[in-house]
Amino acid sequence: MPEFLILLPPDEARSLLFSNILFAHPVSQIIATDLALGRVTSENITAPHPLPAFPRSTVDGYAVRARDTFGASDNLPGYLTLVGEVPMGAAPTLTLLPAQCALIHTGGMLPAGSDAIIMLEYTQLARPGEIEIQRAVADGENVIRIGEDVAENQVVIKEGVRLRPAEIGGLMALGITELRVAEKPRVAILSSGDEVIPVHQNPQPGQVRDINSHTLAALINQAGGQALHYGIIPDDFDTLRSRAAQALAECDVVIITAGSSASTRDMTADVIASLGTPGVLVHGINTRPGKPTILGVSAGKAVIGLPGNPVSALVNGYLLVVPLIESLLGLGNNIPKPAVRACLTVNLPSQAGREDWQPVRLIVTAAGWLAEPVFGKSNLIFSLAAAHGLIKIHQDANGIAAGEMVDVFLMV
Amino acid sequence: MPEFLILLPPDEARSLLFSNILFAHPVSQIIATDLALGRVTSENITAPHPLPAFPRSTVDGYAVRARDTFGASDNLPGYLTLVGEVPMGAAPTLTLLPAQCALIHTGGMLPAGSDAIIMLEYTQLARPGEIEIQRAVADGENVIRIGEDVAENQVVIKEGVRLRPAEIGGLMALGITELRVAEKPRVAILSSGDEVIPVHQNPQPGQVRDINSHTLAALINQAGGQALHYGIIPDDFDTLRSRAAQALAECDVVIITAGSSASTRDMTADVIASLGTPGVLVHGINTRPGKPTILGVSAGKAVIGLPGNPVSALVNGYLLVVPLIESLLGLGNNIPKPAVRACLTVNLPSQAGREDWQPVRLIVTAAGWLAEPVFGKSNLIFSLAAAHGLIKIHQDANGIAAGEMVDVFLMV
Repeated sequence: MPEFLILLPPDEARSLLFSNILFAHPVSQIIATDLALGRVTSENITAPHPLPAFPRSTVDGYAVRARDTFGASDNLPGYLTLVGEVPMGAAPTLTLLPAQCALIHTGGMLPAGSDAIIMLEYTQLARPGEIEIQRAVADGENVIRIGEDVAENQVVIKEGVRLRPAEIGGLMALGITELRVAEKPRVAILSSGDEVIPVHQNPQPGQVRDINSHTLAALINQAGGQALHYGIIPDDFDTLRSRAAQALAECDVVIITAGSSASTRDMTADVIASLGTPGVLVHGINTRPGKPTILGVSAGKAVIGLPGNPVSALVNGYLLVVPLIESLLGLGNNIPKPAVRACLTVNLPSQAGREDWQPVRLIVTAAGWLAEPVFGKSNLIFSLAAAHGLIKIHQDANGIAAGEMVDVFLMV
Repeated sequence: MPEFLILLPPDEARSLLFSNILFAHPVSQIIATDLALGRVTSENITAPHPLPAFPRSTVDGYAVRARDTFGASDNLPGYLTLVGEVPMGAAPTLTLLPAQCALIHTGGMLPAGSDAIIMLEYTQLARPGEIEIQRAVADGENVIRIGEDVAENQVVIKEGVRLRPAEIGGLMALGITELRVAEKPRVAILSSGDEVIPVHQNPQPGQVRDINSHTLAALINQAGGQALHYGIIPDDFDTLRSRAAQALAECDVVIITAGSSASTRDMTADVIASLGTPGVLVHGINTRPGKPTILGVSAGKAVIGLPGNPVSALVNGYLLVVPLIESLLGLGNNIPKPAVRACLTVNLPSQAGREDWQPVRLIVTAAGWLAEPVFGKSNLIFSLAAAHGLIKIHQDANGIAAGEMVDVFLMV
C-alpha cells in the first residue's frame, strides 16, 4: 500500500500550504467596539486626541507651583495660601499665583499656574486658609501630563491585533466606539464516510456518529473563524466533488474529514486534485497523529483533507487549522501560545524522523506541574477529552525521558 | 489620611471574600451541545451506551481468527481463504470459520468469528480467493473493543468542567445533543465618579470617558459571566446606594468602580456597608495595583469596589473577578492558567511586604521569551494594552533581578 509516497515534515507541509494561499489583505467590516472582543484589527488605529486631554493629578493633595515648595522639609516646613478646591469633572476656574495652593483629588484637572501636586500625607492645615507643607515636589510630580498615555495621531493599536479587554478600554478612552476588523474567515466542513451518521441518529451496527464536524466547528469558531456545515457526504466521488466545489465557491477554507478507510482517503485526494490548480500539495505528513492529512490549494484557497479519526482530526485542527485561520485574519504571529512547563511522568518513546504530538494530562503538585501522557488509539475521542494539552516530540528525538521538563501546549 | 487601616494580603483577602459568599450549587440550564463550547457542566454526564458500540478495525487489512495466524512469518507464511469484504457503515453478514479471512477497512465492524486484524502491509494475494499472511497477530490486535473508549454508564465528563472542542466531540459521539450547564453568573457593573462620562460623549476639560465599564464587561463575558451595565452614577450616596441595592437584587455579583478621589472611595465603602451584613470585609489590599480595593458581601453575594484607575481596575479584574466567576460557575480549580516562562530584561525593584503585579511585554528571541516590564502610571490604559501579561513579585521579595526566569500570566 504505497499510499503515502512522500511524507513531508509538518513545518515544511504547513509552509508549502501557506505559500500557495492567496493571503490578500483580509476582508474587513466595521463593528461596534463593544462587540469587538477577540476580533482582529484590520487597520492601524490612531488617537483622535491626546490622552489624557488635560493635566491630571494622580494623588489626593494640593496643586502647587513646584518652585514654591523648594526647600520645604519636616524640620523646615513651607506655608502656602489655600485658594480653593478643584471640582471633579470640571475645569478649575482658579489660577494659582505665587505661594498659593488648591485642594485637588485624584483625577482632578490641574489649575492654571500649577505644575505639581503635593500629597495630602505631607501636609497639614496650619490655620484656616494656610497649608503647611513638609516636603518639596519637582515640576510634574504626581501629575499625568497631556498626552502622557498617547499623543494625538499616535498609532495606538496596530493592524493585526486581537482585541483584549485592555484594547477595548483604550479604544473607549478615545471615544472610538466602532472600528474596522477582519471578517471571520468562512470555513466549510464536509464529513465523508458511508459509516458516518448525524449525531441525533441512533447508530446501527457498523455506523458511527459524526464527531469531527462538531469538534472542528467548535475549534474554528473559537479561533475566530466561522464554521459552516456542508453535511455528511457518502463515499461517492461525484457527490463529494460537487459539494466540495460548492463549498470552495462559498467559503475561504474547505475542510474534508475523510472516511477512515484508505479508499475514501484516496477519494478525498482525488476530489481536491480535481478542484483546480495547484491541487494537492501534500499527501501525507510525517507526524503522529495526522499522517494521512492532505493539503491542497485551489482558487488561492486552502482545501484540507483531515484524517477521519476524531483524535487525529482535532489534534491537526489545533496544529494546522487554527494557525491558518489566524493567518487569514491577518493576526501577527508574535503572540505566545499559552503553555505550561511540566515534568514528564514516564518515558515517552517515539520513532525518530517523525514528529509526535502526545496528549497529556496535567497534575498539580507542590513541586509544580506533572505531565502524564494519556494513551489511546486515535479513534478514542474521550482520551483527548481527558488531556489538557499536547507535548511535541521533535522528529530528531527518539523520545523524552521521564523527569524531563516539557512545554505543554494547552488545548483550550 | 488613615484611609486603609489594615491592608490584607491578596490571598487572605480573596479567601475572606470567598468564605463569606454563598456558593450554592450553581443555577443550571439545559442547552444544545452545539452551543455549549466554553460553558461549565453542572452535573456528571454518563455514557448512555458503550463507545464504540461494536468492535472496530483500526487499520486496513483482513479480519482473522488470531489462532489461525500463529506461526506465520516472512519465511513461513500462512494462507487463509478470503470469504468476503466488510461493508462500511453496516454490520457484516458473514461469519468467519477456521482458516478464513475477510477484507476490512479502517473503522469497519469485525465479522462474527474474527478477533484480530492483520494489516494489508503484511499480506498479499496468493491466488484468487487465497491470502498469504506474513505475520501472526494476537487476539484483539488492531481492534477497538466494545466500550474501549467509554463503558456504558461510565461518567465521561464530570460536573464543573469547562467544555472544549474535545468534550463537545465526546458528547456528540454519544448522541448527547443537549446537556445541563451552569447559568452564566450575572455581574452588575456600576461606574461612579462625577468626572466620568459615557464613551460616546466628548469629554470637557476635567472629564474622562468611562473605560472601566467596558474593560470589565469584556473580561466578565470572556470568563463565562454575563456583564450587566448599571450605568454611571454621580458621587451621591443615596443615588449610588439605591442603584447598588437594585443591582444586588437582580445580579449574582456587584462591582462598583469607584471614582478616583478618596471621598468617592469612602462613599463606595459606605454604600457596601449599608447594603446588609456582613458588609465590608476588606478595605484595602496589600497589593499594587489595587490597594484601594474593597471587598464586601451582602445577601451572600460579593460586592466589590474596584479602584477607579483603569489599570488597577482591569488588573484586579483578572486577579479577583475572574476567579470569582469561575467559582460561581462551579469550575474545578485544577485547570492550569496559561503562562509563559520568560527571562526578565531589567531589575524590577518592589516594596517588601506588598505583592506586586507588573505588566510585561513578551519578546521572542532565538533563546526563548524575554519579559520586558511596561511601566506606566495606573491611569494609563494603553500601558496595559502594550503588555501581554503580568508577573507576580511575591510579598516576601524586594524585587526580581534582571536575567531571572519568571512566569508571565497571560492577559487574554
